[in-house]
Amino acid sequence: MPRIDGQRVVSDLKRLADFGRYKTGVHRPTYSPVDVESRHWLAEKLGEAGLDPVVDGIGNVIGRNPSARRRLLVGSHSETQPYGGWLDGSLGVIYGLELARAFAADSSCAGLGIDVAAWADEEGHYQSFLGSHSFTGMLPEEQIDKVRGRDDGTPLREALQRAGLAGRPRDQVDPGNYVGYLEAHIEQGPRMEAGGNRIAVVTGLVGIKRFRVVSHGSANHGGTTPMAMRKDAGAALIALAAGFAEDMRRLAGHDTVWNIGNMTFRPGVANIVPGEGEMLLEFRDIDAAVMDRAAERFRERVAQAGRGSVRIEVEEIADLAPTSLAPHLGAAIAQAAAARGETPVSLASGAGHDAMIAARYMPAAMMFIPSIGGVSHDITENTSDDDIVFGCEVLADAVSRLWAEV
Amino acid sequence: MPRIDGQRVVSDLKRLADFGRYKTGVHRPTYSPVDVESRHWLAEKLGEAGLDPVVDGIGNVIGRNPSARRRLLVGSHSETQPYGGWLDGSLGVIYGLELARAFAADSSCAGLGIDVAAWADEEGHYQSFLGSHSFTGMLPEEQIDKVRGRDDGTPLREALQRAGLAGRPRDQVDPGNYVGYLEAHIEQGPRMEAGGNRIAVVTGLVGIKRFRVVSHGSANHGGTTPMAMRKDAGAALIALAAGFAEDMRRLAGHDTVWNIGNMTFRPGVANIVPGEGEMLLEFRDIDAAVMDRAAERFRERVAQAGRGSVRIEVEEIADLAPTSLAPHLGAAIAQAAAARGETPVSLASGAGHDAMIAARYMPAAMMFIPSIGGVSHDITENTSDDDIVFGCEVLADAVSRLWAEV
Repeated sequence: MPRIDGQRVVSDLKRLADFGRYKTGVHRPTYSPVDVESRHWLAEKLGEAGLDPVVDGIGNVIGRNPSARRRLLVGSHSETQPYGGWLDGSLGVIYGLELARAFAADSSCAGLGIDVAAWADEEGHYQSFLGSHSFTGMLPEEQIDKVRGRDDGTPLREALQRAGLAGRPRDQVDPGNYVGYLEAHIEQGPRMEAGGNRIAVVTGLVGIKRFRVVSHGSANHGGTTPMAMRKDAGAALIALAAGFAEDMRRLAGHDTVWNIGNMTFRPGVANIVPGEGEMLLEFRDIDAAVMDRAAERFRERVAQAGRGSVRIEVEEIADLAPTSLAPHLGAAIAQAAAARGETPVSLASGAGHDAMIAARYMPAAMMFIPSIGGVSHDITENTSDDDIVFGCEVLADAVSRLWAEV
Repeated sequence: MPRIDGQRVVSDLKRLADFGRYKTGVHRPTYSPVDVESRHWLAEKLGEAGLDPVVDGIGNVIGRNPSARRRLLVGSHSETQPYGGWLDGSLGVIYGLELARAFAADSSCAGLGIDVAAWADEEGHYQSFLGSHSFTGMLPEEQIDKVRGRDDGTPLREALQRAGLAGRPRDQVDPGNYVGYLEAHIEQGPRMEAGGNRIAVVTGLVGIKRFRVVSHGSANHGGTTPMAMRKDAGAALIALAAGFAEDMRRLAGHDTVWNIGNMTFRPGVANIVPGEGEMLLEFRDIDAAVMDRAAERFRERVAQAGRGSVRIEVEEIADLAPTSLAPHLGAAIAQAAAARGETPVSLASGAGHDAMIAARYMPAAMMFIPSIGGVSHDITENTSDDDIVFGCEVLADAVSRLWAEV
């Protein structure tokens, strides 16, 4: 059975974190100079592992086994959040690299290939899941013409040009080549730590519905305008938000989450009735029926809020259906963990991952290892070296089991 | 009986609006060059009316009758809100000027004096009611050292220097000189227009309690953090705001008003649980008992909101007690209106006015004329010329009645 070199896994992760290191974390936005450097470094490492590496026209780093007939694709994304952590994304990429090395070094695994992917821009500095969308044929050229940087508005074409990627072909998947896709990731939440779990098998990725709610009333003197004559755009949003939270508490399943991430009033001073308001709201669940019920109730609340003197506009800014992952791949991970004395927990992923995109084209699975304090998207994001190494060993064992089956 | 020259009233108001004219409104912040110019113009007009005029060390323009034994003080403030209206404040000042002229021209009124005041900075570009506070001895020199401009942080001392006012003495009231203080103003609300009233006698000025509520939670991933483990600073404010609005609907009197003028969450994005929140909230009523009940209920709501995982801080940023105005002065206004065939309405003022300050030192009264559409603090603020002239006539008649009584 292929053997993982735990020290090598940790030291490669640390080396990758040098690209854009910021205090205890990493600042490596997609197509920034350090991001481009790190992708070329990854390609070099994939080459050393015996794969044919390419940095393609969208920045995806793909390492292909030059000879294997049956192949698994293993990876994640390699850019980070702004001033983010060193493991989000990078962990799954370095696990892929280590698995490729370990399987290549084991002669009993000849003909079994690990291809490795480091996707570009899962984090959406330009567009969320840009690289995996490109790889799966979901990113037309016209879309590339349109997209601009989230922070500074740089056209994506210009960023690709500066990154030296313009004109390169974009790699695309041939699903027939792959037995499946595996992505390991830190949990980014507190449940594994709270439960004392070292391995989680991800059953699926939650669906997300996200709305921008804008209210139009009339700004008026907060002292001299009688309550009955106000068109209070702020009060309308507060009532809508409170009512929605009440609804969600009632119809939520065990793992349903919802968030009112922003609320702003204009002009926003103490003694003026708000004339305009805006609110960002989302909810997530693995169960499409719960998502539908929540969406229906939300629409009813909006209709109710819009019957008064304030006009309410709603824009649906995200609508992702829940994604189920392949049970047979998950079972291999669970069995591998159990064989090493660890009882794995089953979790739905509350965050989106490239596995969501890959799952549309091939069987896909995800494995989580714990996040210390549940923290991610922050420079304090961390996981113990022991848990990092253990996760890689379990993933390698799981792949061995899969090869034995197929 | 003294005769008002309606055309002169309107043309003086229009001339005053030339200082800082902005589209259909006026931009004349306290101590701006146009504000200083307008104060010297007012002093000149007061001199022409036979008064001894002064622009004092805080910018108050005071015109004193040089000989009268018994005197009334009539006025308002003369700066405007940023890009505000032409009547807010200015109306009461020009009414004072016209009354001084009319009474001086009527030989039957010899010995009855109208003193006129144009207060500085009621609008609070530096500090609300600055001029009337100074006049009533409530503005110590140390406070002048401390205050800075609301918008650009200019020290008040520097602003006074640039306005050419530094070193001038500050005029102070000798309450014994005055029979009372009269301030006319536009309503700044929609009630008179809705009721078809041309004259309102102001019974008092509402009390104001204003709070800044800050919530401290913990910013976390909005998808991966289970609901039970969140410290949601935004949700805590939404619940507090909705609960407070519910309380107020129950315990409000007929004229109680409340406003949640601002709400902000940080970091303020859709998929992150808000870690910090801030809310501005106020309520107003003429009845001190209602104010006390509302404040008590608000404190209970805050205590309740602070019992969860989110810490709540409350800062009381304004606490003004309700002000009663002098009934005998109000009665004179009501009788004067009735004698001209107009049934006056009684209103509490939902906004603050310099009369609130003056009322601590002498009998004070206020009279409102209608605001078209209830609009103020905006360049579209307006009142018909007919209503402007009629208001001045009623005020002059009321003063005649008062002189007859005292």
